[in-house]
Amino acid sequence: MLTSRGCRDPHHVRRLEVTVITGTPEQLLERARDGSRAALARLITYVEGAGDRHQETASLVYSSHAPYVVGLTGAPGAGKSTLTDRLITVALRESFARRPVFTHVAVVCVDPSSPFTGGALLGDRYRMQGHATDERVYIRSLATRGHLGGLSMAVPDAVRVLGAVGFELVIVETVGVGQMEVDVASTADTTVVVLTPGWGDAVQAEKAGILEVADVFVINKADRAGATQTRRDLERMMDMGPAGPWRPPIVDTVASDGTGVDELWSALGRHHDFLLEEGGDERRRRRAAHELDRVLSALLSERVRTGESAQRYEEQLDELVAGRTDPYRAARALLFEG
Amino acid sequence: MLTSRGCRDPHHVRRLEVTVITGTPEQLLERARDGSRAALARLITYVEGAGDRHQETASLVYSSHAPYVVGLTGAPGAGKSTLTDRLITVALRESFARRPVFTHVAVVCVDPSSPFTGGALLGDRYRMQGHATDERVYIRSLATRGHLGGLSMAVPDAVRVLGAVGFELVIVETVGVGQMEVDVASTADTTVVVLTPGWGDAVQAEKAGILEVADVFVINKADRAGATQTRRDLERMMDMGPAGPWRPPIVDTVASDGTGVDELWSALGRHHDFLLEEGGDERRRRRAAHELDRVLSALLSERVRTGESAQRYEEQLDELVAGRTDPYRAARALLFEG
Repeated sequence: MLTSRGCRDPHHVRRLEVTVITGTPEQLLERARDGSRAALARLITYVEGAGDRHQETASLVYSSHAPYVVGLTGAPGAGKSTLTDRLITVALRESFARRPVFTHVAVVCVDPSSPFTGGALLGDRYRMQGHATDERVYIRSLATRGHLGGLSMAVPDAVRVLGAVGFELVIVETVGVGQMEVDVASTADTTVVVLTPGWGDAVQAEKAGILEVADVFVINKADRAGATQTRRDLERMMDMGPAGPWRPPIVDTVASDGTGVDELWSALGRHHDFLLEEGGDERRRRRAAHELDRVLSALLSERVRTGESAQRYEEQLDELVAGRTDPYRAARALLFEG
Repeated sequence: MLTSRGCRDPHHVRRLEVTVITGTPEQLLERARDGSRAALARLITYVEGAGDRHQETASLVYSSHAPYVVGLTGAPGAGKSTLTDRLITVALRESFARRPVFTHVAVVCVDPSSPFTGGALLGDRYRMQGHATDERVYIRSLATRGHLGGLSMAVPDAVRVLGAVGFELVIVETVGVGQMEVDVASTADTTVVVLTPGWGDAVQAEKAGILEVADVFVINKADRAGATQTRRDLERMMDMGPAGPWRPPIVDTVASDGTGVDELWSALGRHHDFLLEEGGDERRRRRAAHELDRVLSALLSERVRTGESAQRYEEQLDELVAGRTDPYRAARALLFEG
């Protein structure tokens, strides 16, 4: 469990940093559990990078208990960060029905634009500054490429680090309606899709896609015109779709003044209970398979392009650029001949 | 080149369908070039699926001339479909400076929610119905998973089919700000990022990501409040970033009434010219490498999970679920032991 020791005194932090640099993942994990944010940050940096330290850290954290993960996704400007900020406050105060109060909460902000920028989500950090000095809260942006499996593996890796260190609840916040949303849904226990009034104008396919990932719907900025219509649209969509054992509840919120956040928290708790009753085995297995597959394909394609294979790769690429082969034939040539 | 023959008379289309089913990709390509939409649709279905027909079709179309590809991306509700609709009209009427008028234009609507739904972008089809009966225009939604390399390979494959059939301009329209945007940018010659007034509120990282992919910016719904501020924000961002040989122009549009669409068309033409002057070799090679890599990793991970490897895969997955290994060690065990 985390304590406040190690992070309060800036001098202490600085001394720790020096130790951290020469520390093994085991040592860092111990320090991070004692409350060192420098050690925690270093561990996450380890899983974002390549090499032995990545492997050592992964071995450590994947054998630890996984935290409870809430994924928060939705279009830019939907109010996800403000909502996350509110959720942190409630999480530290209230428990789920069958779960004690979360004493430590972490937020991972995922920036899907990372393949180009490597930048950090400064905007989000800013908005969540109310918790920036709270030692029970840890906020981290993941904007780097990660190595094997890319950003989509950096997220589960970071989540596992946070779990191993003692964060019981991790909120993963993502911008977008694309593949990253899907990846987050496969990492999260409970996926919250944040919409705003007027979303009823969205095209059909987007609606269908959102319906598939959502465990809980939030209509944020619900004091604006169109909230009722958006709710009606969602209800109708769910009525038309297949009836599963869990029907995503729809929660109206106004994140800016906190309206509805307690209701959202209750909805999360009900889904948490639902997962416990259902038995999470199949879900855990599916998630593990996702993760394994991502690493496998990254590792395999890396292999084809290094060492002796590198020249053959370049030759096939030449053929491809010249229009004398296609990507499928070229890939098979690299794999099965030679 | 396409002619109108084969698609006008519904009876003719029906007779063609029968022929199509038994046709080889070569035969289909010939018919599609003669104007058969049924044959064209079948070819795209071939590249979306697995098996010999996929490989045969890919071999054919990747040796043909690639069309000029404009990628259009932006958040839901930004007005991409209406803008695409307007662009089609201009494309069929106007030429680029060094390029004759586009006699045939295709649109590929990409639905990134597909891993879950497999549905079609009905909303977009509806909005573009002004061109639905125009024989020079072909609109296709890609919402299926594709096979090797997923949707991100289905897009370049479909683009190549359209090029081989005689479409000189292909507009690829994508919803989202995530990985799919990046993939589209790697497929497109010119990427248009569609924003709306008020976008200045977006977080920093999203801005940076968009800056990296954009060749042309559009501020759509520019008659609304905030357009000037959005333009100022974009200019400032570009001033702060590295100065490249091409500075993305910013075009104000009101797609709903056609305002600014001619200016957008000129901007596309200028970027097209810029690409010609720069020499597209490096860009083409980078794109080919992207495509090869996607197929490679898909093929490789498929291989690990079939035949004799299947049992070892399940064993590693068991270990992973039980927390006795991590995804990286499990992947290495599957690859390098046995």
